[in-house]
This record gives sequence, C-alpha cells and structure tokens, in this order.
Amino acid sequence: MFIITRMSARSMASKTPVGFIGLGNMGSPMAKNLLKNGYPVIATDVFPESRKELQELGAQVVDSPAEVAEKADRIITMLPSSPNVIEVYTGPNGILKKVKKGTLLIDSSTIDPAVSKEMAVAAEKMGAVFMDAPVSGGVGAASMAKLTFMVGGVEEEYNAAQELLTCMGANVVYCGQVGTGQAAKICNNMLLAIGMIGTAETMNLGIRLGLDPKLLAKILNMSSGRCWSSDTYNPVPGVMEGVPSANNYQGGFGTTLMAKDLGLAQNTATNTKTPIPLGSLAHQIYRVMCSRGYANKDFSSVFQFLREEEGQ
Amino acid sequence: MFIITRMSARSMASKTPVGFIGLGNMGSPMAKNLLKNGYPVIATDVFPESRKELQELGAQVVDSPAEVAEKADRIITMLPSSPNVIEVYTGPNGILKKVKKGTLLIDSSTIDPAVSKEMAVAAEKMGAVFMDAPVSGGVGAASMAKLTFMVGGVEEEYNAAQELLTCMGANVVYCGQVGTGQAAKICNNMLLAIGMIGTAETMNLGIRLGLDPKLLAKILNMSSGRCWSSDTYNPVPGVMEGVPSANNYQGGFGTTLMAKDLGLAQNTATNTKTPIPLGSLAHQIYRVMCSRGYANKDFSSVFQFLREEEGQ
Amino acid sequence: MFIITRMSARSMASKTPVGFIGLGNMGSPMAKNLLKNGYPVIATDVFPESRKELQELGAQVVDSPAEVAEKADRIITMLPSSPNVIEVYTGPNGILKKVKKGTLLIDSSTIDPAVSKEMAVAAEKMGAVFMDAPVSGGVGAASMAKLTFMVGGVEEEYNAAQELLTCMGANVVYCGQVGTGQAAKICNNMLLAIGMIGTAETMNLGIRLGLDPKLLAKILNMSSGRCWSSDTYNPVPGVMEGVPSANNYQGGFGTTLMAKDLGLAQNTATNTKTPIPLGSLAHQIYRVMCSRGYANKDFSSVFQFLREEEGQ
Amino acid sequence: MFIITRMSARSMASKTPVGFIGLGNMGSPMAKNLLKNGYPVIATDVFPESRKELQELGAQVVDSPAEVAEKADRIITMLPSSPNVIEVYTGPNGILKKVKKGTLLIDSSTIDPAVSKEMAVAAEKMGAVFMDAPVSGGVGAASMAKLTFMVGGVEEEYNAAQELLTCMGANVVYCGQVGTGQAAKICNNMLLAIGMIGTAETMNLGIRLGLDPKLLAKILNMSSGRCWSSDTYNPVPGVMEGVPSANNYQGGFGTTLMAKDLGLAQNTATNTKTPIPLGSLAHQIYRVMCSRGYANKDFSSVFQFLREEEGQ
Repeated sequence: MFIITRMSARSMASKTPVGFIGLGNMGSPMAKNLLKNGYPVIATDVFPESRKELQELGAQVVDSPAEVAEKADRIITMLPSSPNVIEVYTGPNGILKKVKKGTLLIDSSTIDPAVSKEMAVAAEKMGAVFMDAPVSGGVGAASMAKLTFMVGGVEEEYNAAQELLTCMGANVVYCGQVGTGQAAKICNNMLLAIGMIGTAETMNLGIRLGLDPKLLAKILNMSSGRCWSSDTYNPVPGVMEGVPSANNYQGGFGTTLMAKDLGLAQNTATNTKTPIPLGSLAHQIYRVMCSRGYANKDFSSVFQFLREEEGQ
Repeated sequence: MFIITRMSARSMASKTPVGFIGLGNMGSPMAKNLLKNGYPVIATDVFPESRKELQELGAQVVDSPAEVAEKADRIITMLPSSPNVIEVYTGPNGILKKVKKGTLLIDSSTIDPAVSKEMAVAAEKMGAVFMDAPVSGGVGAASMAKLTFMVGGVEEEYNAAQELLTCMGANVVYCGQVGTGQAAKICNNMLLAIGMIGTAETMNLGIRLGLDPKLLAKILNMSSGRCWSSDTYNPVPGVMEGVPSANNYQGGFGTTLMAKDLGLAQNTATNTKTPIPLGSLAHQIYRVMCSRGYANKDFSSVFQFLREEEGQ
Repeated sequence: MFIITRMSARSMASKTPVGFIGLGNMGSPMAKNLLKNGYPVIATDVFPESRKELQELGAQVVDSPAEVAEKADRIITMLPSSPNVIEVYTGPNGILKKVKKGTLLIDSSTIDPAVSKEMAVAAEKMGAVFMDAPVSGGVGAASMAKLTFMVGGVEEEYNAAQELLTCMGANVVYCGQVGTGQAAKICNNMLLAIGMIGTAETMNLGIRLGLDPKLLAKILNMSSGRCWSSDTYNPVPGVMEGVPSANNYQGGFGTTLMAKDLGLAQNTATNTKTPIPLGSLAHQIYRVMCSRGYANKDFSSVFQFLREEEGQ
Repeated sequence: MFIITRMSARSMASKTPVGFIGLGNMGSPMAKNLLKNGYPVIATDVFPESRKELQELGAQVVDSPAEVAEKADRIITMLPSSPNVIEVYTGPNGILKKVKKGTLLIDSSTIDPAVSKEMAVAAEKMGAVFMDAPVSGGVGAASMAKLTFMVGGVEEEYNAAQELLTCMGANVVYCGQVGTGQAAKICNNMLLAIGMIGTAETMNLGIRLGLDPKLLAKILNMSSGRCWSSDTYNPVPGVMEGVPSANNYQGGFGTTLMAKDLGLAQNTATNTKTPIPLGSLAHQIYRVMCSRGYANKDFSSVFQFLREEEGQ
C-alpha cells in the first residue's frame, strides 16, 4: 500500500519520450530531471521564454498540448490551478484532442480532486489513463529531485507512473483511486495550516505570560502540544535556525499558496458536506493576511501577524 | 534551565512532615506516593471519606488548611479550580492564617496564572514562599508517580520543591517566575486541543474524499501535518490501538477537563490582550460538545462529534 | 434601479405560452400562479407524479427541457442546485439543444453565480437571453404569490422578465448584470445566518446571566444589537408568537437549506478571495447541526443546539 | 418592568449632595449634568486636573472615595474597568471604609457582572445598597444627558436610582437583580459586534460579486439580513451619511472599546460555560485589529480591515 522507491540506473536506449506541459517554477526543474535521467522530453508552455530554456537543454518544444499528445504516450502536467488543467486536457488544443489510446497522463498540479475525477473520466473515454500526483516540497526540492508525490489512480498503472516520478522525487506514495492524491495533499496542508496558526498563537500567549520562547518550545515538543510547526519549523524568531522565522519569513511556503490550498480544502469540504471548523477559520486567517501585506511571506509569518503590540 | 531528575533512596529518619491539601482523584495517589517515599504526611480535604483512606495508610489527618500550616513547613495543594485555591490559601481557615515563616507552598492545581501570582504575593507577606506546579498526566500517571510537573516560582527554592515533586512525578521542569508553570500547562493544552480538533476534521475530510484512514494517518505522520494527535493519540477508531478512540472514547482526558483548561487559556489571553483565534474556537467547540453529551468522553471524541452523517 | 410592481389584469387572448421546468415544492405553486394569471404553461419535471398535478390544472406536460424549449419562448426554471441547472440547460436533452432565438430564460434556482454566468454565455451563443432570479420566501409565499425575486441580467430584458415574475411574487428587484440576483440572495442569507446565530448565543448568554428573555429581546430591539432575528424571528421559545421557536422549530427555513446557501456563500467567497470569517463559521455551525439531528428543523433551532445544559 | 422617564423640575433647596467618583471623558459630563439639575456634588478622581474643572463649576472636591462616602449618601461611580471598581469600593481608602448605612451606591462602569455582584455583597455587609447601571452612548450622549442606563439591583431602590440617572440620561431601563445591567450591556454589544462584522463581510462579498453597495444595503434592509449595522451605521463608505464610515472611521465607538466589551462577554461566557462561537470570533477579530493599527478607529472600520485587495 505504501511504496517508496528511488530510481536505479536506466539506459537511454530503452527510453521512449515523455511529454511535459507546464514549465513554470516547479515544472521546469521537474522536466530537467527527466532529461537528466535520460528521457527524451517533448514539452510545451504558454510562455515562449519558459520553453526556450528547456529547448537549450535538449527538449523538443512544440506548440500545444495536443501536439505533445501526438508525440508522447506518457505525459506529465504541472499547472497553477483547476481551470488551467481543464483547458490543457479538454480545451480546443488540449491533450484529449489528439491523445493516443493507452497513453498515461499524470497531473502533478494541486487542484480540486473533483476536477481530477472529471479529467479521469474524460481520458478514459479516449482510451487513456489519468492519474493525479500532486507534490509536496518547493522549488528547491523540485531541483534536487526530492519531491514527495501523492498518487491517485488505477493501481495497475501505478508502477508505470512511479518509474517516471522517481526521477523527480524522493518519495512516491500510492493513495488509492483517482483524486486521492489531491485529497492527501489537501488534508496534509490543512492540518499543517491549523498546526502553524495554533503554534503561533500558543507561543505568543506563552511569551505574554512570561515564558521564554525557547523553553516553551522545548516543553511543547516533549509534551502533547508537539507538532511539525513547533518542532521543525517554529514560527518564532530566535527559537530555531535555518527556518523562515530566522530570516524575516523570506523563502519557504508563501501565504498566498497556503491560502490557495486552504481554498481547495474548503471547497472539497463544502461539496462533501464535511464540517472543518478550524480548517475553515485557518483559511480565513490566511485570506486576511494576504490582503494585509503578508502574501509573499512564508506562512509561518502568522506569528508576526498575530503578535504585534497594540499601539497607544 | 531544564532539569529532570528522579528521586533516589532517602531515609525516613531525616524527613520532616509534608502537608497535603486536596485528596481527590489526583491528590490522593500523589499523597500516597509521598508516604511511600517515607515522608510523614499531614493531610486534609473537605470530604471526610477522602481523608479516611489516607489516614489508614498512615497520614495524620487534620481539620483545616490552617491546621496543616501549623504542623508542616512544606505544603502541597491539589484543588479543582481557582476559587478553591483562593479559599484554601486566603480563606478564614486558610493556610495563610497560620503559616510559619519560611514555609514552602506548592500548588499543583491547574488555575489562572494571575491567581497563582496573587497567592505568591499573599504568601510573601507572611514570609512564606509560593510556587505553582501544575501537572500533566492523569490518574494513572499520578498513581505510578509518572506525572510531569511544570514549576514556576523563585529559582532558589526550586531545589527544595523538586525534592518533593520527584516523589510524585517522572519529570520536573522549571519554567521561570511564579505563574509560568500554569502558563506552560495552559499553552500546551491549548495547542493540544487545536491539534486534536484539526486532526479529527482532517481525517474526516480525507475519509470522505476516499482515503483509507490508516494510510492517511501514515501520510500525515511522515509529512508536515504530523502532530501528537495524529501520531500518538489518533482520534479515528481503527487507526491505532491502546488509545481512547479504540475503546469508544472511554478513559483518557475528558472533554469537560479540556473545556476547563481552554477556559483558562481564554481568560489569560483576554486579560493579556492576546489574540488566540483557533484556541478560542477550540474552546467553543469543546464547550458545545459538553452540552451535547460528550462531557465525560475522551477529548478525541471530537472526531465522532464532527463526523456523523446527515440524516436523510 | 429598484422597481417593484404588481401585475394588473391581463387578457388570456394576448398571452403566449410560458415554459416551466422543475415542479417541486416551490416550482409547483409558482407554475400554478402562472396558470391562474392566464398563461398557458408548458411544463416538465423528472418526477412523473409532479407533472400529473399540474397537467390536471391545465398545463401541457412534455418529456424534456428540450421539448419545452421547442414550444415556448419564455421559460422559467426552478431546480435544487447547480448540477441540475447545468443538466437542464446544457445536457443532452437540455433547453439549449432546441432553444429558439430570442427566447427569454429565467432561472429561479439558488445556485453559484458563476454557474449563472456560464449559462448566460451558453444561452447567448444560441441567441437566447438568460437571467437569474432567485427567490426569497418559502412554500407559503410561493403559494400566495408573495415571493421576492432578485433579478440579474441584461437590463433591456428586465421588463419582460418582470411581467412574468409579478404573477408569482410581491417584490421584484433588479440587481444588475447576470449573477447579481444570486449574489444578492447569497449575501442576504449569509448575514441572516450570522444574525441568527449571534442572536441565539446572545440570548442564551443573557439568560444565563439572569436576564428575562423577553426583557432582553426588548432591550436589544431598542438598541444597537437589533436585527431581524432578534425583532422578527426570535429564536427563544416564549419570546414571540407565530415563529418557529414558538412551535418546536417546525416549519420555517430548514437548517439543511441554510447550510446549502452558506455553502454557496463560502464557494463564491473562496473563488473571489474574499474573507468571510463569521459567514464561514456560521456555515460550519449549520453543517455540524445537520449531522446532529437538526437538519429538518428551522434554522432558528441553533438556540436549542447551543443552550442545552451540561449533563452531570 | 420597563420604565423610561425624564426628570421634571426640582427645587435646589430639597436636594441632598450626590457623590461622584471618576471624572474622565464620560464621568465629567455626567457629573456636570447633576450640577445643572441642582444637585450639590461631592467629587473625586485620581487625576488632579480632572477634579479642577468640576471644582470651578461648583462641585466640592475631596481626596478619596472614603471621604466622598463620609459626605454623601448617594454616590455614583464611573470607572474604566473592574480593578478600578474593586479599588474604589473595597480599597484602603475606598467607599466601603466610611460608607453610611442606607447609602445608595450606583456604579455606571462597564465591568464583569460577577464583580458587580461581589460589590453588592460587600456593600450589603456595611448596610449600603449597590446597583449596577452601565451606560449605552458615548461622550456626546453624556454631555447632552442622552445616555441609556441599564440598571440592575434591588427593585425597591430603583426609584431612588432613577431620580439621579434621569438627570444624565434619556432612557433608564430596569433589568433585574444586581449584575443584570452589566449583562444587558454586554449582550447588546456582543450582538452589535457580530452584526457589524457580519455586515462588513457581507457588503464586501456582494461588492466583489458585482453588486452596487447602496443597492445591496437597500436589499438587505428590506429583507431578513437587516440589522442596526446595515440600516443605521453602515460600514461601507458612500452608503450612508453622518456615520463614521463617511468620515474615514473617525469618532464613533473605538475598536479598543469594543474589544474590551467583547473581552467581558468572553469572560462571562467562559465563567457560565456558555458557548458563544460568533461572539468569541468577533472578539478575536477586534483583538487582531487593535494590533494592526485600528485601535482608535471606529469599530465599523472592520470593513476596511477585511476588504483590502491582495497586493501583486
């Protein structure tokens, strides 16, 4: 059920081309890792400048998703949001216009699992197979092939997907039927957001009550308040090194991105009639932060958002 | 700053009596552990039946806190809430009516740190020293002397307090000035409540989205969503063994008790003008649960509270 | 901008048929009012029994939305949710498969305004005009032609829509471009939900603090706490007569329906990146209530949900 | 039960002195209105400059609450918060040190009703009568004797209190036993805060969905979304005139004061185990606003806090 592997050596000779659509901050280093692993890559992107860099590294660049589908029977997509995915798969020049029977389609975008399911149905009608495989990890992890992929789709196709994904990531986790990759990512990020805001407000309260922040973090981390945000990514400046809070909340995972993922959590929860009181409030807090100047800071900056002293 | 010790053997002969006030579910086994460690105990409680059991084990039972104060110069109190503490220390038959100069007063109740500070000031006027030392761990930990004590008060008196507390607990942590023991406990339990509700709603959402609960727990626990409630005390029946969710939410830490601690967190946050959006909502959720039949279930039953299917 | 009218007498002779799709609890009395006003009605519904009653009253019943579109150039739809609307307009037997150029399409369903906009675009491609006109008021108001319609769409077509809507409602309000009718309804119901929960928890708090509920309602209603839920639909039994709280929360506007509307508010807010902290929490509260046995009670039963005493 | 009166003419000759303690922004104009109505006033305040102005207007100024109590058998107090009230009544130079039997004590401060009850008990021990009578209305209303008083205390003493309060206010409402005046004020302001934030987020959502704000306000105000904040004090600039939103949120009722009152609501709710989910979240939102630069703006500025566009 839980398969984590790392690619071993392969010979260039045996490799058939892989299509790659979406050469942004994440997609570009991912496609490069396919090249490094000896896969011929057929790529496209709406922005010509994004295509150019990959072309210079040896990828064949074409004009549309449909053309990619004509030339490759394994295609990876990495796009910003649901509407882009719908366009790239089902639009007038979309993959499904030209897809060959038996093609394996892997979408690494983070989108609503309901859209993943729709794409899977549409792909199946054309005789193709669609899997969702969103990633955990940022641009750095993408460059170093250290991403984690959470994969949903037909189990028989999982091995084929895994072969490609291990070129780009350190962990590949099979989650179940199509859409469950998205579900796993959304769930993790929702709990992460709750833990982060909870840690921020708890640390702030403790400091105001006279506790030393490092000592408080130690106590929490040896107790039942422990969480990833308290022990690995503490939001209070001075408590840990090498985390965004030690660097004025630069880098890391931006508040805007967290707000986007919480929006997906909210939508899926609403659509499945699932109450998520804390996830919902976390969403609202990150939404307000985006409009108060925190959009591009790391999401641990919620500590800063909550702590400032009242003026006088 | 962070001292954890365990009592070694002591000889009965050298031990002066220790006062103990509050012989309830927690106080009674704590006092017994003092007896086991060879301390003569002078005890009292408002309920005669609570006194009797301890008397049979060799404690000297007296009628009021004031009498305890006449006979012991180290006194431990373990009481349900702030008003009880105020009464026991400053009431007409309270400790401070008869306390001897130099007496060490250790309060293990979980109360508002502002009350701890008031008691410390009142004790100091009488020449006594007050420390707050609330515990983490339930009745089982109290019986097995496995409690964790979080101690606030004058640092010079910490060693003397520690000598007694190590008879009743496995960990003793010095937190800083008086009130910081309470602060540490309140902060931990607030973050615990947030993590628990967050885990419950995340697991519920994941299940509705088609994920296997055990698999989802595994994914969270290897990712940034990890927290004590997901990896040690998972609220979903069937995910872990030996936790309240595996036993119909019997035992553990009751919803009422969590609601009480969150009320303390809320009060201290309000009084220090600290925003605690998630802590505050967690408080409200446990408050509603208390009135909907969950008062005596373990606090992880929030999973059950949130998950039931809509009728029809 | 704000036009409210009431139909005067018309002669049967001059009237061309009106299509009506969706003969449920609301649609059926609405269609009957068209008949009463002398309009020939061409109707359909997925449930044969719903069709039968209207047929007996003189309506012509056909098999599909496409057939309605063939026979009427003014069509009203009244459906449960967005997917039904999408199916009825754009499905294989949908209206747009057979719609005549110049047809006026009025959708009185309560759905996501983004779907209304999509339907308007699709209708325009076929040379038809789509307007959204959701209603305020329940089954009783529908029977008595006392509904309020909030209408969005091209202003030039508003008069034509108004002619029909005044047969079924007492108020018709033009809100702006297509989708704004839905927006107005969603906004109103979100603020209504917030006011209702706020009134319920305020009344409950006041009662616990020793205030007589009738007196508290009076004070609120003469002060700045006043709102529709406090002065017109008070949720506390015994404060007002003729409201659901006086009748064990029977009748009125069900919790499930409020949860649905709040889900729409949540979705539109997420999609427009608008923070709605209280609306979002209100949504979660009604969602939990649905799963705790309140699904079919009036939404003012939130007072009952919040007030029950803790057991002992 | 609901008695509202206005003072008629009285002759100076028959009037015995009234004590007044707390000559701040509110207390000073209130005391002046007693002077205007012909009452000799015995006043004090911790700030000498506050005393001076009243002295020049004819009041007798003394040094402590105890001295006021020696010279007047009707005393009004108007103080910032609970600790001040406790000090002024029960401190070393407090009223109760010198209070005469039968004295009527009226506290117009806004404080925790539990403290009002404590003061009433303490006063009763000295043979005096304590009533709570917090006000609604700001500095302007205080100057023009247009305040509303909500009065709690023994019903037999209500007439005597009313005689004085009608010199300073336009409405006097008897609420019940001691503490219920505070309860009524706290309840009203909590529902007001909920309605205001709800109106702000609803208006913001509607505007983002394409509705004209004036039209949306009209629709809400003729529908079930109507509340005081939507129809009398709309937070959206341009919708109404003569309200703080029309004047850059200057004047009105400051965010800090609302946060204080919500803190009282939170404390009383926690102490009575009453769930107040929306009131609690409203409290947190105003708390965060205080630390983000909104402390001194009118509380309707929550619209501005929530609406700003995301940067980019």
